[in-house]
Amino acid sequence: MLEAVEAAKKISKSEFTKREDELRAKLLDVQFLLKDAKFPVIIVIGGVEGAGKSETVSLLNEWMDPRWIKTNAYGELMPSEKQRPEYWRYWRDMPAKGQIGLYLSAWYSQPLQQRVKGDGNENRFDAALSKISEFEQLLTDDGALIIKYWLHLDKDQQRKHLHALEADPATAWRIAGDAWENWHLYDEFVAATEHMIKQTDAPLAPWKIIDGAHDRFRSLAVGEHLLATLKAHLSREVKLPEVDELPAVSTEKNVLRSVDLDSRLSKAEYKQRLAAAQSRLNRLQQRAKRAGVSTLLMFEGWDAAGKGGAVRRIIHSVDPRQYRVIPIAAPTAEEHAQHYLWRFWQKSPLAGEMAIFDRSWYGRVLVERIEGFARNDEWQRAYEEINDFEQQLVDHGTVVCKFWLHISNEEQLKRFEDRAETPHKSWKLTDEDWRNRDRWDDYEQAVHDMVVRSDKVPWTLIAANQKWQARVQVLEAVCEQLEARLKQG
Amino acid sequence: MLEAVEAAKKISKSEFTKREDELRAKLLDVQFLLKDAKFPVIIVIGGVEGAGKSETVSLLNEWMDPRWIKTNAYGELMPSEKQRPEYWRYWRDMPAKGQIGLYLSAWYSQPLQQRVKGDGNENRFDAALSKISEFEQLLTDDGALIIKYWLHLDKDQQRKHLHALEADPATAWRIAGDAWENWHLYDEFVAATEHMIKQTDAPLAPWKIIDGAHDRFRSLAVGEHLLATLKAHLSREVKLPEVDELPAVSTEKNVLRSVDLDSRLSKAEYKQRLAAAQSRLNRLQQRAKRAGVSTLLMFEGWDAAGKGGAVRRIIHSVDPRQYRVIPIAAPTAEEHAQHYLWRFWQKSPLAGEMAIFDRSWYGRVLVERIEGFARNDEWQRAYEEINDFEQQLVDHGTVVCKFWLHISNEEQLKRFEDRAETPHKSWKLTDEDWRNRDRWDDYEQAVHDMVVRSDKVPWTLIAANQKWQARVQVLEAVCEQLEARLKQG
Repeated sequence: MLEAVEAAKKISKSEFTKREDELRAKLLDVQFLLKDAKFPVIIVIGGVEGAGKSETVSLLNEWMDPRWIKTNAYGELMPSEKQRPEYWRYWRDMPAKGQIGLYLSAWYSQPLQQRVKGDGNENRFDAALSKISEFEQLLTDDGALIIKYWLHLDKDQQRKHLHALEADPATAWRIAGDAWENWHLYDEFVAATEHMIKQTDAPLAPWKIIDGAHDRFRSLAVGEHLLATLKAHLSREVKLPEVDELPAVSTEKNVLRSVDLDSRLSKAEYKQRLAAAQSRLNRLQQRAKRAGVSTLLMFEGWDAAGKGGAVRRIIHSVDPRQYRVIPIAAPTAEEHAQHYLWRFWQKSPLAGEMAIFDRSWYGRVLVERIEGFARNDEWQRAYEEINDFEQQLVDHGTVVCKFWLHISNEEQLKRFEDRAETPHKSWKLTDEDWRNRDRWDDYEQAVHDMVVRSDKVPWTLIAANQKWQARVQVLEAVCEQLEARLKQG
Repeated sequence: MLEAVEAAKKISKSEFTKREDELRAKLLDVQFLLKDAKFPVIIVIGGVEGAGKSETVSLLNEWMDPRWIKTNAYGELMPSEKQRPEYWRYWRDMPAKGQIGLYLSAWYSQPLQQRVKGDGNENRFDAALSKISEFEQLLTDDGALIIKYWLHLDKDQQRKHLHALEADPATAWRIAGDAWENWHLYDEFVAATEHMIKQTDAPLAPWKIIDGAHDRFRSLAVGEHLLATLKAHLSREVKLPEVDELPAVSTEKNVLRSVDLDSRLSKAEYKQRLAAAQSRLNRLQQRAKRAGVSTLLMFEGWDAAGKGGAVRRIIHSVDPRQYRVIPIAAPTAEEHAQHYLWRFWQKSPLAGEMAIFDRSWYGRVLVERIEGFARNDEWQRAYEEINDFEQQLVDHGTVVCKFWLHISNEEQLKRFEDRAETPHKSWKLTDEDWRNRDRWDDYEQAVHDMVVRSDKVPWTLIAANQKWQARVQVLEAVCEQLEARLKQG
């Protein structure tokens, strides 16, 4: 595949200058249109050493307005990056809608190196490539345009390029320390690259292979392809996938029915179990801090179900240096210009830290579904996207506890009325709460679908008609999950 | 001073519960009003070990709605924090307007430890306290309310508290590893603390000393004082300081007159010096990367003065992994809810990185002054605030290069007309550019004042009537500053 690519042609300086001038002007025009577009552009520049990756990145920054391009290049994981799942840094650097993110090698570099120079394990390579495909699909499903360039050289050309780059002090820095070592593994790299390109080529995230033997040819080939692709995408009619409504669930079969809302604790039992659980949690979190184990607690539930009270009982027993409460409201403008999962990725816990989400990414399949803020295809796709997000956290070693605080319809009404009547509680009750209450049945269906479909990392349903009962259940569940994780070491 | 504080009284459980219930309700009410306030609240909780700092932080989170409180506690500098000036982490965690930031020990802990257990240097301690005062004044000038609690114990009480905390596994974690060592230095700590409190007590950032001997007394004392202070501040009439307009500068005395706009480079000289400077910059930046030296380039200048072109000539010679272009437009909603310097602190360069600002914090004394977005007292205060910000970067070892790209009024008109007429450039010209041009004289005065008053880190004025000349000057100036810094090691 890689040998079959169109061979670089010599291009005269005068022809290059002419085509470059034209290209620059048109790229700027397209970039200007792009600013109002509803999607981000992700450009991946990969390729063999010496084929002009860095030069291409510089050139694109020079040709276009660099204020709207964000260039991202990655080396070894930095300490702050190691504390989060592998893909955290790619999410962190994601361009907003209307912007261009230029990724040098990006998420491809590490799996390729691992395959050829690391353990060489083929299954692991394929798993890494599947993960890439899923990641890119999640982005393109959300509207992102991904364009991937592979700059190629044959083995002999690469040798010549490396020599030439090394000879000039102004370019020697472009050569990585292990460039020659890699050159000796040329055939292995090419075989792995061909496999990689085949596995990760997708209609909205295609690879374009370009011969990197001559600078002018390569520069124009990348630039002109990029221009054509951007133009095509800007004028593309987006055809939304058709999806069916999920089948309605009868009340009897709703998972919430399994929650025993009648269970009660006596005051004495509450005090005893609360104190025991708080003290246990404190000791466990101290161990987690030392072990660098991070914990993510996530609270969803009916309005007035007692999320705040449960959160307070948890933080009471944890060193303030070790927890962070993250209230989730409507996204800010900056967050809105990103994939809906972006803001949650940003806020995932550091090593040894406990991040407590008061509401969460499940807004996508609850309020956004019910209020129509997300299209049917968007929220239906979200179950899998969320499964995948949570799984990445768990794979990284994070303890993820997901709570739904369940109360009965009558109990909610009682609490709303109590809030309305008690002066210092009345601010807690808004018109929106009453509107949500009117849609109780819709929410009940949405909660069922959510718990059933996003269950890769399991939910804990909490009987919250009695607050004492709810708080103790939450605390004990956190302790159990944390303890089990710490036993694994 | 510390002995003279009101002694803790025993408070019965029933009295405590009654006062606590009342207090909670009122704190929630005030917090609700605060959400719409135009200022942030910064609460510092300091005190001797065992006097209840952590308990107080937990309690405030429990009493109030934790969704609107951000708790910040600091240990040793983390790797990512070491790459920035000391105060970077405090800026990072700053609460937005309407929010409460709870700081455990905060910026006081390190200077105090250093004074008593480090080098003990008195001048250094005083310098650190001055820095704190300036920082807090900058925040209160901008409207922030700062409330600082010092929780105190006498030496014998502290011994008893430490023993009691140690004995209970649920509280032993609250004691730092060096608590007993510090207890033996009790008198030294008290002396240094008294000095610290005197030096950093300010009308809008006062210290309140509270006896920490009894939990209930301490809790109510903090809570009731906090409530009263918040209420008073919310109802306070803000009296703006009166300031005079700066004296007008005659055109002859304007610093911009010193720029020789007639200087020109021949094409041959341009090409030769550009290539030499780019290659030199490349080598210097490689050394800077290895040495962990960060660089901040900042571009201001007339519209159409060629900032973008100068930036492109710089990044062309730098490894894309090592620079970041930061375009500055109007602040986002999130940024607008913070001190105007906040977003620039966030974006300061990492170790070995080159951060290139296309426009900057000087918007405060340019567009915000001219358009009236900042009040007179605000932009006049900004010169010193900016001096201080830049000095902190320089003190940290960052190379800071500040450029004003100067062109003549006639040259700007020529460029505007050229942009208007050239299809692929016309998008670069906006109505705002023409409006700014109408206020050329006002800007000329503002630039003069800026260059004269914010000169602690010096400006480089660039003659930019000829673009070749401007690019070469910028590149060579960056090389010189970077080289000088690298010589220092």
